[in-house]
Amino acid sequence: MSLYRHHIFVCLNTREASDPRGCCSAKGSEAVLEAFKAEVVSRGMKGTVRANRAGCLDQCSHGPVVVIYPEGVWYVGVKPTDVPEIVAAMVKGLKVERLLHPRSR
Amino acid sequence: MSLYRHHIFVCLNTREASDPRGCCSAKGSEAVLEAFKAEVVSRGMKGTVRANRAGCLDQCSHGPVVVIYPEGVWYVGVKPTDVPEIVAAMVKGLKVERLLHPRSR
Repeated sequence: MSLYRHHIFVCLNTREASDPRGCCSAKGSEAVLEAFKAEVVSRGMKGTVRANRAGCLDQCSHGPVVVIYPEGVWYVGVKPTDVPEIVAAMVKGLKVERLLHPRSR
Repeated sequence: MSLYRHHIFVCLNTREASDPRGCCSAKGSEAVLEAFKAEVVSRGMKGTVRANRAGCLDQCSHGPVVVIYPEGVWYVGVKPTDVPEIVAAMVKGLKVERLLHPRSR
């Protein structure tokens, strides 16, 4: 068995400002991670759900990028204000369709 | 669907040397990540398997810690020399029992 019911990874990678792909960090992913951590705490899920910093998830042009396991659901262009909706869907086994990575639909 | 068949996360977190838990980074996790990346390339799995840097996985005393999704298999005390065996097991849907996290058995 795994250690968490849901394990949320948020890309915090940083690239040079000159990189045409951009990077999740410059697009505000640190605030997205903090929003997930706060949501986990406020829902009393600490210990069963973990919001985790990740290195480059290799989807730089789509950032901020989030992947949730074991579901394998990928979200792109995530803003802190999207986080409550993502978590509400996650606990019900649903997805937020409008934020899905094109290859995660 | 997910973007990868297997997504391997290696904790690269660093803690103060005075922290009694230690940290994965000081226990050699960077070399473990590099070993996974090399193994993925040498097996021609780039694009379907990703070896990823992760922030703290909250299992500091067990480091270096690795988790593989979507399986949710957790390994502890991983050395670079363990990596070929872990990947060989992973692609067969098996686990390396001797390295499993006590709560991942």
